[in-house]
Amino acid sequence: MAGKPSGGRGARFAGAMDPAAAALNASVHFDRRLLRDDVRGSQAHARMLVVAGLISAADGDAIVAGLDRVATEFQSGGRALDPALEDVHMNVESRLIELIGEAGRRLHPARSRNDQVATDLKLYARRAALDIVSAIDLARVALCRQARAHAATLLPGYTHLQRAQVVTLGHHLLAYAEMLGRDRGRFVDAERRAAESPLGSGALAGTGLPIDRARTAETLEFSGGPTHNSLDAVSDRDFAAEIAFACALLAVHLSRFGEELVLWSTTEFGFVRLGEGYCSGSSLMPQKRNPDVAELLRGKSGRAIGDLVALLTISKGLTLAYNKDLQETQEPLYDAVETAQQSLAVMPGLVAALEFDVGRMRAAAEDPALGATDLAEELVRHGVPFRSAHEVIGRLVRRAEEKKVTLRGLDAGDLRAIDAALSPEVMAALDPGRAVAARTVVGGPAPAMVEREVARLEAELTALGLEP
Amino acid sequence: MAGKPSGGRGARFAGAMDPAAAALNASVHFDRRLLRDDVRGSQAHARMLVVAGLISAADGDAIVAGLDRVATEFQSGGRALDPALEDVHMNVESRLIELIGEAGRRLHPARSRNDQVATDLKLYARRAALDIVSAIDLARVALCRQARAHAATLLPGYTHLQRAQVVTLGHHLLAYAEMLGRDRGRFVDAERRAAESPLGSGALAGTGLPIDRARTAETLEFSGGPTHNSLDAVSDRDFAAEIAFACALLAVHLSRFGEELVLWSTTEFGFVRLGEGYCSGSSLMPQKRNPDVAELLRGKSGRAIGDLVALLTISKGLTLAYNKDLQETQEPLYDAVETAQQSLAVMPGLVAALEFDVGRMRAAAEDPALGATDLAEELVRHGVPFRSAHEVIGRLVRRAEEKKVTLRGLDAGDLRAIDAALSPEVMAALDPGRAVAARTVVGGPAPAMVEREVARLEAELTALGLEP
Amino acid sequence: MAGKPSGGRGARFAGAMDPAAAALNASVHFDRRLLRDDVRGSQAHARMLVVAGLISAADGDAIVAGLDRVATEFQSGGRALDPALEDVHMNVESRLIELIGEAGRRLHPARSRNDQVATDLKLYARRAALDIVSAIDLARVALCRQARAHAATLLPGYTHLQRAQVVTLGHHLLAYAEMLGRDRGRFVDAERRAAESPLGSGALAGTGLPIDRARTAETLEFSGGPTHNSLDAVSDRDFAAEIAFACALLAVHLSRFGEELVLWSTTEFGFVRLGEGYCSGSSLMPQKRNPDVAELLRGKSGRAIGDLVALLTISKGLTLAYNKDLQETQEPLYDAVETAQQSLAVMPGLVAALEFDVGRMRAAAEDPALGATDLAEELVRHGVPFRSAHEVIGRLVRRAEEKKVTLRGLDAGDLRAIDAALSPEVMAALDPGRAVAARTVVGGPAPAMVEREVARLEAELTALGLEP
Amino acid sequence: MAGKPSGGRGARFAGAMDPAAAALNASVHFDRRLLRDDVRGSQAHARMLVVAGLISAADGDAIVAGLDRVATEFQSGGRALDPALEDVHMNVESRLIELIGEAGRRLHPARSRNDQVATDLKLYARRAALDIVSAIDLARVALCRQARAHAATLLPGYTHLQRAQVVTLGHHLLAYAEMLGRDRGRFVDAERRAAESPLGSGALAGTGLPIDRARTAETLEFSGGPTHNSLDAVSDRDFAAEIAFACALLAVHLSRFGEELVLWSTTEFGFVRLGEGYCSGSSLMPQKRNPDVAELLRGKSGRAIGDLVALLTISKGLTLAYNKDLQETQEPLYDAVETAQQSLAVMPGLVAALEFDVGRMRAAAEDPALGATDLAEELVRHGVPFRSAHEVIGRLVRRAEEKKVTLRGLDAGDLRAIDAALSPEVMAALDPGRAVAARTVVGGPAPAMVEREVARLEAELTALGLEP
Repeated sequence: MAGKPSGGRGARFAGAMDPAAAALNASVHFDRRLLRDDVRGSQAHARMLVVAGLISAADGDAIVAGLDRVATEFQSGGRALDPALEDVHMNVESRLIELIGEAGRRLHPARSRNDQVATDLKLYARRAALDIVSAIDLARVALCRQARAHAATLLPGYTHLQRAQVVTLGHHLLAYAEMLGRDRGRFVDAERRAAESPLGSGALAGTGLPIDRARTAETLEFSGGPTHNSLDAVSDRDFAAEIAFACALLAVHLSRFGEELVLWSTTEFGFVRLGEGYCSGSSLMPQKRNPDVAELLRGKSGRAIGDLVALLTISKGLTLAYNKDLQETQEPLYDAVETAQQSLAVMPGLVAALEFDVGRMRAAAEDPALGATDLAEELVRHGVPFRSAHEVIGRLVRRAEEKKVTLRGLDAGDLRAIDAALSPEVMAALDPGRAVAARTVVGGPAPAMVEREVARLEAELTALGLEP
Repeated sequence: MAGKPSGGRGARFAGAMDPAAAALNASVHFDRRLLRDDVRGSQAHARMLVVAGLISAADGDAIVAGLDRVATEFQSGGRALDPALEDVHMNVESRLIELIGEAGRRLHPARSRNDQVATDLKLYARRAALDIVSAIDLARVALCRQARAHAATLLPGYTHLQRAQVVTLGHHLLAYAEMLGRDRGRFVDAERRAAESPLGSGALAGTGLPIDRARTAETLEFSGGPTHNSLDAVSDRDFAAEIAFACALLAVHLSRFGEELVLWSTTEFGFVRLGEGYCSGSSLMPQKRNPDVAELLRGKSGRAIGDLVALLTISKGLTLAYNKDLQETQEPLYDAVETAQQSLAVMPGLVAALEFDVGRMRAAAEDPALGATDLAEELVRHGVPFRSAHEVIGRLVRRAEEKKVTLRGLDAGDLRAIDAALSPEVMAALDPGRAVAARTVVGGPAPAMVEREVARLEAELTALGLEP
Repeated sequence: MAGKPSGGRGARFAGAMDPAAAALNASVHFDRRLLRDDVRGSQAHARMLVVAGLISAADGDAIVAGLDRVATEFQSGGRALDPALEDVHMNVESRLIELIGEAGRRLHPARSRNDQVATDLKLYARRAALDIVSAIDLARVALCRQARAHAATLLPGYTHLQRAQVVTLGHHLLAYAEMLGRDRGRFVDAERRAAESPLGSGALAGTGLPIDRARTAETLEFSGGPTHNSLDAVSDRDFAAEIAFACALLAVHLSRFGEELVLWSTTEFGFVRLGEGYCSGSSLMPQKRNPDVAELLRGKSGRAIGDLVALLTISKGLTLAYNKDLQETQEPLYDAVETAQQSLAVMPGLVAALEFDVGRMRAAAEDPALGATDLAEELVRHGVPFRSAHEVIGRLVRRAEEKKVTLRGLDAGDLRAIDAALSPEVMAALDPGRAVAARTVVGGPAPAMVEREVARLEAELTALGLEP
Repeated sequence: MAGKPSGGRGARFAGAMDPAAAALNASVHFDRRLLRDDVRGSQAHARMLVVAGLISAADGDAIVAGLDRVATEFQSGGRALDPALEDVHMNVESRLIELIGEAGRRLHPARSRNDQVATDLKLYARRAALDIVSAIDLARVALCRQARAHAATLLPGYTHLQRAQVVTLGHHLLAYAEMLGRDRGRFVDAERRAAESPLGSGALAGTGLPIDRARTAETLEFSGGPTHNSLDAVSDRDFAAEIAFACALLAVHLSRFGEELVLWSTTEFGFVRLGEGYCSGSSLMPQKRNPDVAELLRGKSGRAIGDLVALLTISKGLTLAYNKDLQETQEPLYDAVETAQQSLAVMPGLVAALEFDVGRMRAAAEDPALGATDLAEELVRHGVPFRSAHEVIGRLVRRAEEKKVTLRGLDAGDLRAIDAALSPEVMAALDPGRAVAARTVVGGPAPAMVEREVARLEAELTALGLEP
């Protein structure tokens, strides 16, 4: 049909694209995610064209209203995007022209698909970043609540997955709140750094028409104003890489949480029971109660890292300005974002439904070996140089192993034989509750410190309008 | 409905999965690719169960016929896979039971979804590998034809993208045929290494029922027979990683080809014009003829590398045997395979439609600097040690730069001043046609050698039933 | 030797490590980079122990002075780190004890190698980030100077590597200054987010001794104060991943610059000549002048992406708190940082030494096809709807191709036959200088806008104490 | 010095390289690994030049003997490689000329550093692959021995890290032998595919001199003869990527083994105790016995994946033929190979020193839930359709959970209430020894099958000259 943009090929070409090439080139199956951003960007552009005197007010109004209709048609599912029109942008413009005629043909001056897709993708990315920030906050609320409930619940802390020192469950859970807090900061930074509007950069070289880029930037809430270099603006996908990185590191954190849930829900550890809504059974083994969701949280990290690699590698070695390779940056971004969203979506319910076996944790925390460091510190308090204290306790551990008893099972003779300083008073440091309560250093596991950190987190979350 | 497998949860669970967890867990949107492999695997299993006396012949027949109906229903699009049933396996079994009743409930003994999905995925992977091998061969046919046509077409060869020595276009194109030949070998090896059947490994521990794994292996054309360790068999995704690697390296090769087409179709190089069916225009700049397909061939490599990273990273640190993380290995495999398939699909047409500007290539090949090495070799033929010859020509190049002339533009006085050996006879080595014709070493660019290599490739492709 | 820490094995073990295990475990060949941070951290710790009353002032002084000696010994090369002592931390402490005796044995209470290495590595990472920021600024100075000199130098701008529209060289160079500006922001953010001190987190669970973490944080210039969770603090390597990501994206930007230099220094483009100090010759081809440095800038991006993948993958699925895997996070961080530093180090000289062939660029910019968009915009100025203008120019381009002339070579009859609007006045928009001067939109390539952006960048760099 | 190759710059350049550029460009600190391959390749080249009549026999002898001296000097450490000469190749040739004079200047005709480094690197890669194959075999010997010793040792098998079914320890260990067996195959394939000699491909375009490439290929044991395309030969690093991939997948397998050792040596599992030579202690916690080596095996996988990414990404988009970026392919290859070698080196000792706690494993294997599947299979043997059997056992499991007893703790009334088929005879299937002994399917865990697989592996290893 004359007058319709034919997927960007224009009058320049006599024939159609080769079918295999068209398949390689197709993007509507993924760039449909940009529909609402595309419409929003085009509306801002049209309104600005009116003010700049490049189109009439009537045409501007017709375009804005027409775009609303286009959006509704495609979003409602009443109308499908046509792959023959290459991408979502051409679908929108083409349908607009069908709906409103001549006025629709006046939408595209002073812009190009290059600045258009850069704008759409940045709008999407910023939305996605803020959405993930909210989802992170909900996960932090859930962790905060469980941490408050378990501020004084004892369990072994591990290094190298060997029992190391007694800690509190609230402290353990808050470690994940810390990680998520840093993740949040990265998304906020990424969103802020993406706050410059590419719209008006044209295909690569701006435009000679008297447009007002600051106005469209403001309409689209790009608080950083317009970008400062048109060649960079149309070829920049840093914001996508930065968000994909934030997603990948978030996914790594969730993988650690997932690993621990898998581990803790083993028969051997038995520290936690996942909510039934987060488990699956087996098609063969009738007794199984598998922590599928925790495993998926773990596995998704590989996917997110892969998305990041794709984004960075695609951008490697590209000359200025726009290159078609950049189309390939969309899917990894979408996948990274949606993986993050899906993973975070399970967190509030998953965390809230965790049933900790407090008795089993407490029993494990009674393991006297966990108090070895506390013993050493007690010796230091009694004036023994630390290195010497470390050696004394090392001998104590070996003696206990030889006798096949725990540290508490050594008798007074054993203690005397090792070091005179090992008085009953000193040995009392082995009590797990006493040991952990003493570790009131900032960031320490003592119940009092956990409560302090919970309060700090609550204050932050409350200030964000949440109810932790 | 009682009697239907409910997504593997079985009677073990009272409630349903949390919706966010179900979304995270869902796989029918991607594992639908396994439909035909799943049906094929189940039919093999059912037939074996009859022979083993575990089900009746009538039940076996009913299952096999029922599975054909199930496959048809889903493939025709008449029936959609139900996400509530988790995966394609449960969809197939559930629908089978609906269709044939009690007999359908007798299909699953002595197997589990764990060995079932491992089998399906291996069947898919092997099919995919062989399909890619065929697509590689078609690309090699196209390269072979163009190489034959251009066995004697001169152009500059480059190192560091600096003009280096004259070569022939046929030689240049055959370099890609070599790369694709190695890629082919990797897919063949991967397919061969995946030729052991996991079916019958159960959930992790085999089965005590008297099944015949060799029989199902044979039915499913697993030429390596059954796998040798059930724990390994259900958790092995090496074949997926190996194919993804082969896809990634193939994609890297195609990215090099794409880069060269982008470069050669610039105004500055002007060596080639892509077929119109492989180009796009611009929504803003009416004159553009963009080599989109070549750019996408280049960009897709990032995606394939990302898929490989995902696969490897997901598998890191997994304990024996099956873990849910393995579900995440499917999508990167599919994406790697489909990326390879889509990229290869454009190659025959793209290569065939290349219009080389032979005149421009020839003109560039006349650049006398390209003959510097040939001059040095000519001096060696006249007895000059190579290092000395290299130095003489180095001085020649600097002299020509000082005089702002080409090597051929230096006069007899210049030559004498540099080295007495630089006779007119020696300087004749600068003729590009003569120079390249002389390089008849094995694997060299002389037209005679290109023809020899074309013949070798033709013979190989003909033996494969192709018409190069 | 009694009294010396034996690589952390302590009295707990009877025998030595297996040699192959020791080789796998060895770290002094890379963690020697932490020497000065380790000494600095230990001195801060010792001073705090004095204030906290845990060691005497005399012991504290002896430790601080002794550590200075240890640092000097190792840094001067007079003393080598001993691999048998596992790592730099044990080497320092062991040598300290040799030098000052008993007092040295009082350094280690209330800390562990776990919080010690986390602290050291953060100190290193923050130093590295700031160092890279400075190096980025020097690269921006060089780009700024060349951009100023070439604010009005015309050359073709490219999309899809096809000539698109005329731009200015200054504008092109400033695109890289924009990328580097964003990179700078990422390093600054990463450094800021790493500003919490892990010291005092102990092995995983803090300490019961009355230490003052805020004091050591302040001494070590951790402006964020102490970390808030000991389990997180000893296992957090987010800062390493974040810096590695910033390095990877920086490397991708430099790879784009490298690619363009390689391209522009081809015979075919001929836009630039690299300084001789940045090129290499050939061992065989005497005439070669290869842009090795530009190629390495391009290739190094692969390495940086690999480092990032290593860091993220290593952290996947690790349980709380410290795990030995974290040792493997050091080398990728060092490699990413040093790759960034080496790459940036060449930038000022490389950029300053670029000799642009202004005449060749100008000649290429005369290509009339570059003005097609400007023509279309001129038609829009005369009231033609953009889509229609785009089509008119599309027909113009095809007509010119048919006649094998440039757009300027079409005669009045051709123009009339296509569209009456194509008056000589309109066709004057094809003049490259006029076209580019008209594109004065924010971020546009007009010389006036380049000067404005140069001034903005100069102001920023001057405020940083540099002389752009 | 006249007559020496000056790092490849030759007479072409007036000045030296910029120091920062030289630092970026430097390679002797890593390509020193190629010394022996470089010398070997040059000797083969020299001998061929004699036969081809390009140099005299006396010169050939002088070169061969001189190269031996050069190798000895550098290898003994008596002489250091000079970074000013760029790389190992120029160091060798330069020193050769110093030692033997004029004859040394006759070594380089008909080759270039481009084919030289490709040849050296392939020689290295093939050596490395074969070395890793041997190391894999030694690891398999160790696994085979432990598997034989524990063919009948019972322990729980896990899926999703939930106890699933009883298996045997020998079976579990053999799963790793299977993985390593596939790894072996990949290295063998990679080595075979790298068996074509690039030597004689020149800089990119072969040579016009009458050399005999088949002869040098044979001398250097390249069983595939010379490569078939000079442009491909000098730019091909597929062999490096393929070996790096094989290393990465091997590392993933070892990461799984490492993860299991970490897990099994926890207090909670307590299935194994690592040899003291493979553990470390804590600088703070005196009782710790950390499985450092197992953790490093796990962590190293991230590094190997990073190396692979680097190799693939570096090669992306490179035009023919040689580009300097390829220099960056060396370090990731070396790192991948050395990581594999170091990891494998610990395996024989680590595996041999594992002390399994057979009693604890056996006790865990008594968990009646592990027999649920065996029960279901027993019901199938009694004619119950599998899906029905699965449901019956599902109800049994829920009933046992409600009563807080094990499956064996349910009384006859419970059983009857659930299903009449649950006779005492059927319930006897819960005995772990009986259950596992029944699973004699190929690849199953029954002791008899483990012994069969051990015998198969022994036969293979014995045929390789090893003593399993």
